[in-house]
Amino acid sequence: MSNKKIGIFVGSLRRGSFSRSIAQAAVSFFPAELEFRFINIGDLPLYNQDFDDDGKPPASYEVFRHAVADLDGFLFVTPEYNRSIPAVLKNALDVGSRPYGHNVWNGKPGGIISVSPGGLGAFGANHHLRQPMVFLNVLLLQQPEAYISKVASLLNEKGELVDESTRTYLKNFIDAFSEWVRTISDAH
Amino acid sequence: MSNKKIGIFVGSLRRGSFSRSIAQAAVSFFPAELEFRFINIGDLPLYNQDFDDDGKPPASYEVFRHAVADLDGFLFVTPEYNRSIPAVLKNALDVGSRPYGHNVWNGKPGGIISVSPGGLGAFGANHHLRQPMVFLNVLLLQQPEAYISKVASLLNEKGELVDESTRTYLKNFIDAFSEWVRTISDAH
Amino acid sequence: MSNKKIGIFVGSLRRGSFSRSIAQAAVSFFPAELEFRFINIGDLPLYNQDFDDDGKPPASYEVFRHAVADLDGFLFVTPEYNRSIPAVLKNALDVGSRPYGHNVWNGKPGGIISVSPGGLGAFGANHHLRQPMVFLNVLLLQQPEAYISKVASLLNEKGELVDESTRTYLKNFIDAFSEWVRTISDAH
Amino acid sequence: MSNKKIGIFVGSLRRGSFSRSIAQAAVSFFPAELEFRFINIGDLPLYNQDFDDDGKPPASYEVFRHAVADLDGFLFVTPEYNRSIPAVLKNALDVGSRPYGHNVWNGKPGGIISVSPGGLGAFGANHHLRQPMVFLNVLLLQQPEAYISKVASLLNEKGELVDESTRTYLKNFIDAFSEWVRTISDAH
Repeated sequence: MSNKKIGIFVGSLRRGSFSRSIAQAAVSFFPAELEFRFINIGDLPLYNQDFDDDGKPPASYEVFRHAVADLDGFLFVTPEYNRSIPAVLKNALDVGSRPYGHNVWNGKPGGIISVSPGGLGAFGANHHLRQPMVFLNVLLLQQPEAYISKVASLLNEKGELVDESTRTYLKNFIDAFSEWVRTISDAH
Repeated sequence: MSNKKIGIFVGSLRRGSFSRSIAQAAVSFFPAELEFRFINIGDLPLYNQDFDDDGKPPASYEVFRHAVADLDGFLFVTPEYNRSIPAVLKNALDVGSRPYGHNVWNGKPGGIISVSPGGLGAFGANHHLRQPMVFLNVLLLQQPEAYISKVASLLNEKGELVDESTRTYLKNFIDAFSEWVRTISDAH
Repeated sequence: MSNKKIGIFVGSLRRGSFSRSIAQAAVSFFPAELEFRFINIGDLPLYNQDFDDDGKPPASYEVFRHAVADLDGFLFVTPEYNRSIPAVLKNALDVGSRPYGHNVWNGKPGGIISVSPGGLGAFGANHHLRQPMVFLNVLLLQQPEAYISKVASLLNEKGELVDESTRTYLKNFIDAFSEWVRTISDAH
Repeated sequence: MSNKKIGIFVGSLRRGSFSRSIAQAAVSFFPAELEFRFINIGDLPLYNQDFDDDGKPPASYEVFRHAVADLDGFLFVTPEYNRSIPAVLKNALDVGSRPYGHNVWNGKPGGIISVSPGGLGAFGANHHLRQPMVFLNVLLLQQPEAYISKVASLLNEKGELVDESTRTYLKNFIDAFSEWVRTISDAH
């Protein structure tokens, strides 16, 4: 296939974000035909439909919507906040879904990696994130799932993923994700 | 019981928000011993843990956290965005849950009303909202549930709830919610 | 593509099951290259891992597992029981997932139609059913979703779907489902 | 308070069920005023509304419904099957919820412990189980949550919970559960 542009969406704004560390490791395993770009979601004002109804969306919305529309697929790497999706990531989904009839996520392949400093792999975020994807028509990779637990213990002091078994696990996930992007892209 | 202060949280920022209309109808059914105050959640920056780690949370966070800490219970009235919780409401939950160990939602009673212009009563928002409440230890009213469908047809041109059967349904919900606030408050 | 065999799984055992009525309407819209067969799930004993560990699964398990393994895709038509999946349908998923390493659902396309006599389209069943599909690696159609509300009013006295707008809605769903089966099948 | 009768519901039928081991450890921490009884859910035929409509429910349904109606609270201890509730446990919920208007779970306190041989604490079962509880009006303990991971490593060869930190964790959970039963019972 021709090269595909994959947007990376990190669900945490923290400077030392564990999810960003894992995202950086993930893209290091991308095959040559998958290009990646980290998409900034931190400067999008909380979604308010008045913006669109008034025909004056914030400039950051327009930049974001164009950036997403230009992508061929999505990789979401996210922590869990209070057993669900961080607001910053849900906001990005909502901004990209509107105005009505202009859902920029529509029909493209996606994958989810959830990341936790604790023991439960951010399962709650991982699966809550899947429900809006049904409505947004993002075609999600089902298997393998990717839950990263106790993430702090897997990184070195520079935030690089050094745990070998997690590196293998992540590489396998990216292999399946790449194949899934290919499957969905070829079908269109 | 002595008077209880109930915070009303509306999950939409739109000027003509249907959820706010329903919230206003709901509080009109409050018994005398329940005071209410609408809590502003629209000006809270997207949660970033650096704010708290640096010891410099936005002023709006501090105002919000104090306001919530002062409440005796919560009523959430929300639309569904893309089959889940609007980011603005999830953000409010996240801001109130932090910094770690200072969860201002902890141990108080809550209720949920979900509101939709369509036919499915915003079920997806209603139930996704329940999952963070487990972690936040908000003690939720289970029955009756409150799903409002086809909301535009229930309001007059001023946004007032005029549909009689929905008014009865909402009054019954508020009666049960009031009893629940009493149960939980008496136990503490 | 060559003909594909689609299994129809109805989540209710009731003689006059509304879900079975909707399933029968759905298959009437199948294109020629989709064959269908209703798969019996009502006589599967509640899953107990001892059956497999002892090497003595009930005969009905073996029949069921072979039947599912022989399919090219799945259509689930289900009511909601207590805001979630009926046990009879969850049991079928569990039986087909085992013994470990022999998941007969693996890698095939699927679709979900949820059916309710009430107003909320059995949303809770529809979306709870999606979570096991992640683990089972059933590749689910995302859009359109299919929620059927107030089903009794859509059928005639013989249980036939006669409501025209629902017939169109269901036909559109089956068109998308057929296309999805084709996409996934071609990729394998 | 006077003594309360708590039903223990184990979501696995396996002879060597890990969940039953954890349930046995849990009841060993019950205070004197909580009596417990393990409720058999393994011989309930898959729910079929015809049984009730015909006025001929299986004898096991009648025994079960009377047993649950006689309880003052519920403790559910369950594995996860395919990221959701085992069918055997969902079936018990469904049987107890019917016939319409005779929900024997209604208005009583409950708690959930989820148990996994893997690393994610059966989060998917724990939270999926909470959704029917809303409809059934079981008043659930929110905090602490109880997720038991890697359960095989916590038990001795007789299936007794010997891991000290898990024993403490479970005892704390039971203390909070007991207090919750007291709160809800006193309110009625």
